Formats: sequence, C-alpha cells, structure tokens
Amino acid sequence: MSKLKSALSGLGRRTDEPPISWLMKVALDRPKLISLAAGFTDNPSLPVEQTRAVLDRILGCSKRGPSALQYGTGAGDALLRELTVERLRGQDCSTVGSSAHDAGRLMITHGSQQFLYMVSEALFDPGDIVLVEDPTYFVYLGIAQSRGMRCRGVRMEADGIDVAHLGETLERLKQDGDLPRVKALYLVSYHQNPTGTTTSLAKKAAALKLLAEYERAAGHPIYLMEDAAYRELRFAGDDPASALTLPGAEERVIYSGTYSKPFATGIRVGFGMAPKEVLSVTMRIKGNHDFGTSNLPQQILREAIDSGLYEDHVRDLRKRYGRKAKAMLGALEKHCGGLAEWATPCGGLNVWARFPRTRPTGLKSRLFEETLKRDVLYVPGPLCYGQPRTAHEATRPKPTPAIRLSPGAASEARIREGIKRLGEAARATQNAR
Amino acid sequence: MSKLKSALSGLGRRTDEPPISWLMKVALDRPKLISLAAGFTDNPSLPVEQTRAVLDRILGCSKRGPSALQYGTGAGDALLRELTVERLRGQDCSTVGSSAHDAGRLMITHGSQQFLYMVSEALFDPGDIVLVEDPTYFVYLGIAQSRGMRCRGVRMEADGIDVAHLGETLERLKQDGDLPRVKALYLVSYHQNPTGTTTSLAKKAAALKLLAEYERAAGHPIYLMEDAAYRELRFAGDDPASALTLPGAEERVIYSGTYSKPFATGIRVGFGMAPKEVLSVTMRIKGNHDFGTSNLPQQILREAIDSGLYEDHVRDLRKRYGRKAKAMLGALEKHCGGLAEWATPCGGLNVWARFPRTRPTGLKSRLFEETLKRDVLYVPGPLCYGQPRTAHEATRPKPTPAIRLSPGAASEARIREGIKRLGEAARATQNAR
Repeated sequence: MSKLKSALSGLGRRTDEPPISWLMKVALDRPKLISLAAGFTDNPSLPVEQTRAVLDRILGCSKRGPSALQYGTGAGDALLRELTVERLRGQDCSTVGSSAHDAGRLMITHGSQQFLYMVSEALFDPGDIVLVEDPTYFVYLGIAQSRGMRCRGVRMEADGIDVAHLGETLERLKQDGDLPRVKALYLVSYHQNPTGTTTSLAKKAAALKLLAEYERAAGHPIYLMEDAAYRELRFAGDDPASALTLPGAEERVIYSGTYSKPFATGIRVGFGMAPKEVLSVTMRIKGNHDFGTSNLPQQILREAIDSGLYEDHVRDLRKRYGRKAKAMLGALEKHCGGLAEWATPCGGLNVWARFPRTRPTGLKSRLFEETLKRDVLYVPGPLCYGQPRTAHEATRPKPTPAIRLSPGAASEARIREGIKRLGEAARATQNAR
Repeated sequence: MSKLKSALSGLGRRTDEPPISWLMKVALDRPKLISLAAGFTDNPSLPVEQTRAVLDRILGCSKRGPSALQYGTGAGDALLRELTVERLRGQDCSTVGSSAHDAGRLMITHGSQQFLYMVSEALFDPGDIVLVEDPTYFVYLGIAQSRGMRCRGVRMEADGIDVAHLGETLERLKQDGDLPRVKALYLVSYHQNPTGTTTSLAKKAAALKLLAEYERAAGHPIYLMEDAAYRELRFAGDDPASALTLPGAEERVIYSGTYSKPFATGIRVGFGMAPKEVLSVTMRIKGNHDFGTSNLPQQILREAIDSGLYEDHVRDLRKRYGRKAKAMLGALEKHCGGLAEWATPCGGLNVWARFPRTRPTGLKSRLFEETLKRDVLYVPGPLCYGQPRTAHEATRPKPTPAIRLSPGAASEARIREGIKRLGEAARATQNAR
C-alpha cells in the first residue's frame, strides 16, 4: 500500500492551500487578535431584523412559501434577474433598451466567486493566459493557479490599469506567439481588492478597444471580465459606468456582481452576465455544479430589493464603511505618517499601504512578524501579485512592498488601536531588512 | 470578426446541453403536462411553517442572528457537521469510535451534487476512467462528459452491481493497460436513480475488496464513491449500512449525502466525506468555487435537526412517498401489466419500467412521442447509460429499453392518470418499431 502514488488529478495536485486559510488559522489561534486582514463585513451591520421580516412575509404567503422552498431554475429567479438588471441600468444611467443590460444575459450564482470560477472553466485550458491587474484579487490568482492558467500582470495607475503597458504586454505576447492562449483581461474595476483603485470608464473603453485589435492575431475573442464585487460599497464621489455601457459590450464584456457583501455574507447570492456563447456554456457548467442557486436565499434578496429594504440597508452600510475607512485613514496619518503611503479609497473594504523598498511586507518579513507579535494581522501585498512564470515576467520590476488593510470587520476603536500597533511595528523594523 | 473561432476551453466545448434541460423546456411549454420525469419533491410536502418557525428562532436570537448572516467556514458549520455524523452513525448502527464516521472527514456543500463535482475535479484528468453502474444517475454522466472523463459501465443485479462483471471489467482494463486511468467506482447505493435498486452491504464490501486488489497494478488508490442521495427516503424494509462501515473505509470510501431532497430542495445543503488527501484538496477547490456553503441555509438545517423537527418531517415524507409510489405501482399493474416490467422500490423517487427489446423508449422513439402526445413525460432510459467510448464498450449488449418514472412531483390522482395514459401510448405503439 505504501508504494502507491496519489490518485489526484493535475488540478488536484495544483490546488494549493490558499494563503487566506493560513491567515484565518492565525486569527483563530489568537482570540485577542485585531484582524485588519479579513475582508468581512461587520456583525453589527448585518440586517437581522430586516431578513426576519422578509422571511416572515415570504413563508407566511401560501403561494410564495412553498415555491421558495422548491427547486428554482438554472439561471435563477426570473424577477431577481429583472431587478438586478434594472439596478444595473440605474447605476449605469443606461436606457431601458441597452442591448448589454438584458436579464437574458444574466445568471444568479452562489456569490460572484462561483461565476468567476465557472467562466474560467468555460474559457481557459491549462496553459491559457489571463491578463490581470498587478496587484489583483488574490483569490482569483488561486483559481488561475489551480486551473493551470498563466497570469500576466499589467501595471496599475491611480485610475486603473496602465493602458500603454497593456498594449506592450499584448504586443509582446503576439511576438512570442502566445496570443492564441490569451482569453481575457480580468479587472476588479470598483474599489479594487486590494488597492481600492476604481477604473475610469475611459480606461475600460481603451482596454476593450486594445483587446479587439489583437483578436485577429489571437484567432478568437478576447473578453473583458469586469469584476464589480465592491461596486455597491461606494461611500464618496461618483462611480464611473460599467463596461456594459461600451460599444460592443454585448459581445465581449463579462460582468460579475454580488449581493453578499452589501446585504449579508451568510446569504451567498451573486450574479454574472456574459455574451451568449459564454453564458450558455456557463449555465450548463452551473447545471453540473449544483443545478442552480439555492432558491430561498434568492427569494430573500428578491423581496428585499423589491420592497426597497435592500436600498435602505446599502445606504446605511455605505455611511458605516465610510466612517470606518475614515477612522483607518486618520489613524494611518497619525501613526504611520512618513512610514508608508496610501491612497484614499472612495469605497470598498480595502486600504493599500505601500512601504519603502527596503521594508519587505511578506509572510516571512520582520514587519509581518512584529505586527503579529502585537496581535494585529494584515494581508501581505506580495500575495496579490501573479507569480512570474516566464522569463519575460521574471524581469518585471519587483513590486513595491505593500499591505492590504481592511476596515470591514473590526470596530472603529479596534481599527485605531490596530493601526497604532502597526505603526509601532513599522518603527521597530525601520532599520531592519 | 466573423472569421474568429470560439474562445471556449476544451471543457467549455465538451459541456453539452444536458438532456434534462430539454425535458424541462418540454414541461414548461405544456402547462397541462403530467410530468413523471421530474425528480422533484412535491410542493404540499414542503416544511414551510417549520422553516418559518426555525428562522424566527435563529434570527430572533441576538447572538445567533448576526452569526447566521455572516460568512461561515470553508468546511461548513461545526455543529451541523457533528449532527450529520451522529445521524450517519445511527443509520449505520456504528459505535461512536468508528474511524470513518468523523466530523473532521466531512464538509458541507451546496447540495451533494457540488461535492460530486469537486471530488471529480480533484481526482480525474481528461481521459481518466470512472466505473459506473449501468444504468446510473444521468447528471453524473453529464459531469463526466464535461470533464472529459471516460465512463465504463458495470452491469446491475437486483441487489446492486454485478460483482463478477466488475471483476471482468477491471481485468480487461488491466490487460488493456488502462488501469492507471481508473480512479473510482461510482455507486448510487440507496434507491438508485434511475432503477430504485439498493446495493447490499455484501456487494459494497466485495466491490471495495476488488478495487483494492487492482490498486497495485493501477499504481494509486481506487476509491469507492458512494452517492447516498436517496438514503433518507426509505419507505419500506431496512436499509443496509453504508460503505463507511467497511474495513479500510477511512482510506478509500468517499461518501455523499444531502438534506435538500428530504427537507427542502429550495435550501441546498448537502455534505460529503472523503479520505484525508481527497478531502483536503476538495476543501481547497471549494474555497475557489465559493469560500464555503451559504451560512443561513446551514443554520436552518442545523436548528431543524437539533430540535428534532427534521426527523419528524422526514418520517412524514417517507410515508407520503410510500403512498405515492404505491399509487404508481398500482396504476402500472392496472394499465401496463403485460406491457412492461418493473421492480418495487423500497424508497427514493424512481420507478424503472423495462419494455420488450422491440419497443425503443428514447427521445426519438414512438413511445416517447405517443406518451408526450397524451401530455405525459418520462425520462428515457437510454439517457442513463454511459456512452460507449471504446471498442470494448461498443460491444456491450444493448441495454433493455426502459423508462424512469418519478412519483415525486405529481399528486396521486395525476400519477394514476399519467400511468393510464402511458399504458394507452404503449398499446398504441405495440406493433410499431
């Protein structure tokens, strides 16, 4: 027996323990820990009474009650899909007739993460390439790694990806003969995880245009995947319209969003939109995964949105996260001024603090160690960069050391205390490598 | 643009429209249809008031309310996992100390289907082989097809697979040099979908022993995947213990079950158990899919089981399905006696009626056409057989024409009427090909 090898598939062998699991274990082992790592929403903000009232209404109705407890359809509840598209139209200031804003192009999933996973199954073979922001959402990097995809990072600027660098990257891929492997550009476009950056509509338009220019050489469509997970959580300024408003969006834009973070993370309901061929295959894949999203959670969201309760809740939540982000930024100014730099996010759950090149921030760095010693946890920035996989990528300039700080889970008082200790840790390591 | 090829992956291209979608569309297009095809539970049996009470208790509690709406953990709620293992121990008459019955070996999923999908990702590369019952659950065949797996069918007898044929199949695979591609045997062991057959413990033991004998030649473990989706729905006789009770189960048995069908299909909560390596990889894959099962539905099941309400509901449900199966079998006797043959199931939601070789039952058969003309729908048996993919399999004896009839969704009166019309259709095609 002991001579047997593992029976795991290539995917099984590639699927690493995600770094987030390790961070979560650290958090569980230290009950006093102030976690600025968890991208959670906070317990006091959860709509418990509202959900109770909504459920009472649904289950108290002789017609809706049983149907809420019955199987739904593969695409998801028809009214919830309509309401979702209506909200998107509103956010995009789009007319009713916009061809990309169509409920027939939308499916409901167990969180937007599931949609991203299934779209990746539909598009990417092992060895295929996804263009990503550098840095980007580390869970998507984990999916790519598991599925044997190659990531190519595109530099970022204050208003989203560096379009010139996207062009250079595509040109380089073309010269290397790798363009036929490029299937999509993945953008976390609103209040990005981890940097908080929001991509301007002009940049989305320029990126979509660039991708189109390289399609002939690729031999197939190159999609723009817009992950709008944090779009609802804007607390300052105006958000740009989504890529769905751009010419050609109906054929090339894949869009995902979620109700989990803005409403309740314990009710996993997200959604995705895609061009016809991609959507139809993704729906079939969904049938193989789970036949369709759990119906009762969908009915909760549908009733919450339809009754206006969702909108009220999100309005309160935005104010709440605005206050918490302000508390964090104020504390950074006070305790980390001169030690690090950060941009002020207009929404979302992340603040990205950059340290000097001499101050590594990774899991094995002294900064991480000193911070954890003070019972504070952050997400090390290096986890948010695609692994260099080719000679070309290995020559990429080393990213600036940075950390992701989330004001979501902790109270304002604990945020302040956590940042104070982070400042102490940073000072303690100031002359260390 | 028109010269571009599709950007779909191999998986995307392989993922066919499942036949069930077509059947569901047929049902939607005919509002008067009596569907004996849908494996649904019926609306009047759904625990609406019970769920309302349970939710009121959870959301009315100042501590449990918010935590039910917050993210859970990747493996699922700890108490729900404990309760699930406790129930399994009871069903298996197993002692508390049984090594395979351990909550640490169990994870909660969005229905057992999701677990089967993820385990298949963890184990099977394209081209790898899964041994299946002939016939078997057609949705699993769809997963296998999508993932590029090859299916090898093993004949069935009245108490489960034909162990001698399993041996011949393994021997043939060994001779052909294909054994290293064989990763698992997939058994739907209780009230099988589609035949209603329950596999005896002796057969499970014999199968597990046989698989072990071929492991050395395979070079890796060959797992026994026991899909117990219908286990809770027994309405007559005693169920055999699960493969978890067998020697070596801890290392080789993968087991899946669900609360969706016995409680409410609109609340998708299932579970799976697996040996350490397989479980740990499947958990990571789950993290990539969706971070863990929606928490609120888990809390509903946990409260329902913990309070005894679930047990009461399942007891009622068993009686109900027993009555409905009896109505169907009585009607078959009356209207289809002499035309077809069937076995009496002891549980589950399926009756398998076999017709003479001269009477095809497929989607393009006259029987299907004549039955549909009378507004009655069944699942054609041929959909439940793995496609022949090798010369060896192509020489397999052609399966007996059969149909799957489900007493789950329709009322007893409509079941009787549906079977009456099926009899008319069968007589109308008696001399047709």
